Amino acid sequence: MGKYPLLDEIESPADIRRLPESDLPRLCGEVRDYLIDTLSMVGGHFASNLGVVELTVALHYVLETPADKLIWDVGHQIYPHKILTGRRERLKSVRRRGGLSGFPRRDESPYDLYNTGHAGTSISQLLGEAMARDRLGLKHRCACVIGDASIASGMAFEALNHGGHVKSDCLVVLNDNDMSISHNVGALNQYLNRLITSPLYNRWKRFWYTLIMWVPVVGPALQAFSRRIEKSFKDFLTPGGLFADLGFRYVGPVDGHNVLELVRVLRKIVRLRGPIVLHAYSQKGKGYQPAENNPIRYHSVTMFNRADGTFAGGKASSDQVGFSQIVGDTLLEVARKNDRVVAITPAMIEGSGLRPLADAMPERVYDVGIAEQHSMSFAGGLASGGAIPYLCIYSTFLNRALDQLIQDVGLMNFPVRMVVDRAGCVGPDGETHQGLYDMGVLLAVPNVRLYAPATGGELKAMLLFMEGFDEGPIAVRFPKAACDRSTLDQLPDVSKIAPEVSGSGRDLAIVCPGITWEAGLELERELRNKHGILSTVVGLRWIRPLDVESLIELLGACAHFIVVEDSYIYSSAAAYIVANLPLDIRGRHIKTYAFPEEAIPHGSREEIMADYGLTPSAIAADLLTHPAFSGKVFPSLAKPSEV
Amino acid sequence: MGKYPLLDEIESPADIRRLPESDLPRLCGEVRDYLIDTLSMVGGHFASNLGVVELTVALHYVLETPADKLIWDVGHQIYPHKILTGRRERLKSVRRRGGLSGFPRRDESPYDLYNTGHAGTSISQLLGEAMARDRLGLKHRCACVIGDASIASGMAFEALNHGGHVKSDCLVVLNDNDMSISHNVGALNQYLNRLITSPLYNRWKRFWYTLIMWVPVVGPALQAFSRRIEKSFKDFLTPGGLFADLGFRYVGPVDGHNVLELVRVLRKIVRLRGPIVLHAYSQKGKGYQPAENNPIRYHSVTMFNRADGTFAGGKASSDQVGFSQIVGDTLLEVARKNDRVVAITPAMIEGSGLRPLADAMPERVYDVGIAEQHSMSFAGGLASGGAIPYLCIYSTFLNRALDQLIQDVGLMNFPVRMVVDRAGCVGPDGETHQGLYDMGVLLAVPNVRLYAPATGGELKAMLLFMEGFDEGPIAVRFPKAACDRSTLDQLPDVSKIAPEVSGSGRDLAIVCPGITWEAGLELERELRNKHGILSTVVGLRWIRPLDVESLIELLGACAHFIVVEDSYIYSSAAAYIVANLPLDIRGRHIKTYAFPEEAIPHGSREEIMADYGLTPSAIAADLLTHPAFSGKVFPSLAKPSEV
Repeated sequence: MGKYPLLDEIESPADIRRLPESDLPRLCGEVRDYLIDTLSMVGGHFASNLGVVELTVALHYVLETPADKLIWDVGHQIYPHKILTGRRERLKSVRRRGGLSGFPRRDESPYDLYNTGHAGTSISQLLGEAMARDRLGLKHRCACVIGDASIASGMAFEALNHGGHVKSDCLVVLNDNDMSISHNVGALNQYLNRLITSPLYNRWKRFWYTLIMWVPVVGPALQAFSRRIEKSFKDFLTPGGLFADLGFRYVGPVDGHNVLELVRVLRKIVRLRGPIVLHAYSQKGKGYQPAENNPIRYHSVTMFNRADGTFAGGKASSDQVGFSQIVGDTLLEVARKNDRVVAITPAMIEGSGLRPLADAMPERVYDVGIAEQHSMSFAGGLASGGAIPYLCIYSTFLNRALDQLIQDVGLMNFPVRMVVDRAGCVGPDGETHQGLYDMGVLLAVPNVRLYAPATGGELKAMLLFMEGFDEGPIAVRFPKAACDRSTLDQLPDVSKIAPEVSGSGRDLAIVCPGITWEAGLELERELRNKHGILSTVVGLRWIRPLDVESLIELLGACAHFIVVEDSYIYSSAAAYIVANLPLDIRGRHIKTYAFPEEAIPHGSREEIMADYGLTPSAIAADLLTHPAFSGKVFPSLAKPSEV
Repeated sequence: MGKYPLLDEIESPADIRRLPESDLPRLCGEVRDYLIDTLSMVGGHFASNLGVVELTVALHYVLETPADKLIWDVGHQIYPHKILTGRRERLKSVRRRGGLSGFPRRDESPYDLYNTGHAGTSISQLLGEAMARDRLGLKHRCACVIGDASIASGMAFEALNHGGHVKSDCLVVLNDNDMSISHNVGALNQYLNRLITSPLYNRWKRFWYTLIMWVPVVGPALQAFSRRIEKSFKDFLTPGGLFADLGFRYVGPVDGHNVLELVRVLRKIVRLRGPIVLHAYSQKGKGYQPAENNPIRYHSVTMFNRADGTFAGGKASSDQVGFSQIVGDTLLEVARKNDRVVAITPAMIEGSGLRPLADAMPERVYDVGIAEQHSMSFAGGLASGGAIPYLCIYSTFLNRALDQLIQDVGLMNFPVRMVVDRAGCVGPDGETHQGLYDMGVLLAVPNVRLYAPATGGELKAMLLFMEGFDEGPIAVRFPKAACDRSTLDQLPDVSKIAPEVSGSGRDLAIVCPGITWEAGLELERELRNKHGILSTVVGLRWIRPLDVESLIELLGACAHFIVVEDSYIYSSAAAYIVANLPLDIRGRHIKTYAFPEEAIPHGSREEIMADYGLTPSAIAADLLTHPAFSGKVFPSLAKPSEV
């Protein structure tokens, strides 16, 4: 018999439903064990998944998935679901190129209803499913699982407000582990904590359970009566009043690690009508001591030693430093120098490198929770009030704040400093997290200045420069990557907008906005050494303002130019640059090398770049076959008479 | 003595503060009278303004504006504030080109702290102001006024959740008139109604007023004590618990039309610490009977007869029909035919033309309130669940749903039908409402098909076509405008992507995406008749998919081409079209006529177009002086040897 006797028999949730209830705790143990075993070998999202093992088993046990609809918010916690829906073996490939996604994926399984990644969307989707069901006259159940961090996002509230009004039958399972990736913040979080710890609650809970146990049996008349009782009692007794105020029945809190209690409660409430919130409390990292002790560190892991929780490989070379770490170190420096400086993060203290600043000067970091819309307008208010706000936000989440960027920052020209991390291809997180829109978004908004450093030193210099720049909004965008620490030794003067230039070949200008500078240099070498084509690399850091004059001179000296980007091809710096060039120069633009406007999958950054032909050698090869060159040749290769 | 003896003496809020309290009701009467008089002559936002007269007077009376910060959400209700802050006379120019804006404007007055227009931003700005004040060690008060529709938007909840956590001193005045532009929806709205009507409340109110009256006098120790009492009592007695749950003190409800009570309550609460919600109930249209009876009709008005409330001018010519009305009529037709069809609107039943459908089949229209983020993901859920959702949304508000469009619709290729109204220059609403981003936004997202009709018939045909189109997301964008009703008589076949073509001149191709087709035809005539330049007008309706083949043929036959757009110049269809053309064709693109990426002010659509050189004659004049033509000539004007 194998290590996982029960799990080995589970090919789909129907197999779980064939088990006696008494086997469920053992099944949960096997799932947890399998998770720890597998992820210690291959890495992936970890602590959140350990926290939802019992919930996942209980939901598939009680609901008739996939006929009943089960939606997962964000999807960091999807691994137990994948294990139980026929993807146990493939979990070993998670987040790797061609392997399982780290998030739910419709193309992986009929049990995955939505591709997710951003927080707070599940209640909207739940209502959509429920109301489509009602419209079509169908009868299945609809449920979603959402964390306490996600439910505090604005769009989750919008959905609760709508759901509590229309009263369609649906179940919101609130998985409350008091964490997002970091520790949770916000008044709602404090409120939920009070719910769990309230002594008042216990008396109420017994009453309520007795009530719902009887309701389905005795029929609608008593159900209406019980609702009246429930309501009048709740106003006085239950601390779950906030959800009741929003039109949802509140049930809970229940222990999210007691699978039998979860099954018992779920069996009752799926028979009730109307919108319901089931509040389950759980522990991130449950069942693996090192992760319980430090769930932030174990949110997403690389390979580790199961026995002691130590990580393989150790730290990155000390010659290298991550861009996010440069942000954290520099903002600490700036904040120490100027006490008007504050940093804002929508729930990404760790990811944005702000931990040192938050530890040293907690009053200078505002973690607003998963609230990108608010974060932007709040930053505008801070700027208006005389503070110096640095808004640290991931490129993919900036899309949530486009309107606020336009209305509450851009149009009023407020000096909000935007620090846009994870811009460009993000690698293992895949399509929902790609930072491929920010160039287009930032350039579409009036007054926004945009700087894209190619090195850590340039990033640091810009962060320092921003402190004193109060003429309007300014953004710096950079990828999830590391750079040579030595670039921090001598900081460039970022106040000049002229591009960096390397080489002086006249066959081709290679325009590189921001981070593609290194690739441009390599491309130049390859074209010269292998193909005898001589080019000039034009490294733009400032995208807006754009040094059009220098570009005219540099590009005008070359027969053709290309743009190499870490962005989408249309929503890009390239499109902006080309649009700003005069007609005679524009005509020399033969191609932009960038991602096509389609879903870009997961894999390492290097693998994905290669798949899309964005490596220097792939670009070189493509260039030589480009139709622009049919019947023409590069000047350096031409016979004199042909030039 | 004039008609407004008190008002005539008010040049700034300091003058109000010099009045005895007993004069305030009379001042309110004069402000209201002046509003009715003025707006009956010039039109403008009306009913919301009548509802906040007392609140505006009371706030300026108690707060030391502008040293104390007073922020208005949205700004539909800003006219009394403008009247009392030195802009009484200029109100006659409201919403006209060069005149007062219909919204707060920083460049109009130091009493206007933010340019606003979109809902739900004020609490974020309030927190920014309050925390900047705390950081800088300043002492002024910060308050905002937000309506009950706006406070239900997701970002307002995000800000409440943050504010209740950090506990900075600030005041949120909730102006509850039970309306947005239409009647209000949502569970929060129902909750607020219960607060106002609750009999329980009155007992509590007396207790609480007694308490807060004493607190500032007896100092911090008793204040802490009173908070404990307050909290324990509130859990049991007050129905304002939702705000308390979110960490705000709840005060109210108070009568928003009793200026003396408002002053009394405000005087107490501005001395309290921490975040406070003051809940005032008011009536939209208060004091003018026709507006009280029909606040939706009187939300925004044209000239009307003060005596009986009838509108001047009467209806538009019956030969004309508005685009929004075509949407409403067509969706009713589609919904009758197919019972899977539903429409979604974020609080714009009237504006989007959905009233006929909502009246005839209320179960087929989901008004989700001011919740654009939710509306998009909800539409995705409906599509996933098998319904046929038409999401009716204004172009300017689509920006709020960019991330949801990407993540929850675009990447999963869900067939959500987006009906994008008010696209392009919007006229009197001005810079915060310009629909100038949607082309860029929609084209940046994978899988979104985009159609831009030039006529009402094309709009109708596309709305009919969308019903059966289930291959993925599809959007139709059109301006706030009317068209000849006759275009509805014969509907075109919108399934073909080939452009419309008029003329066959080879000097110039005039590419017109969507609504600029008419302008293109006129430009062609003007260039031909006045200047002897012969052009071809290429009218694009389908922007994506783009008929690149036809474009190559048509543009390849002309010496040059231009694009004429009702959009921003960079975030546009033009940029997308040009990027998709091959190099040799792209080189013929001499200019895009569109709005520059800056704040575009208010005025009539025609005036603003003229100001930006976007009329046919302005384009013709500009074309003749374009540097692209220096040393060259149009083929038709050239001597044979020069061609």
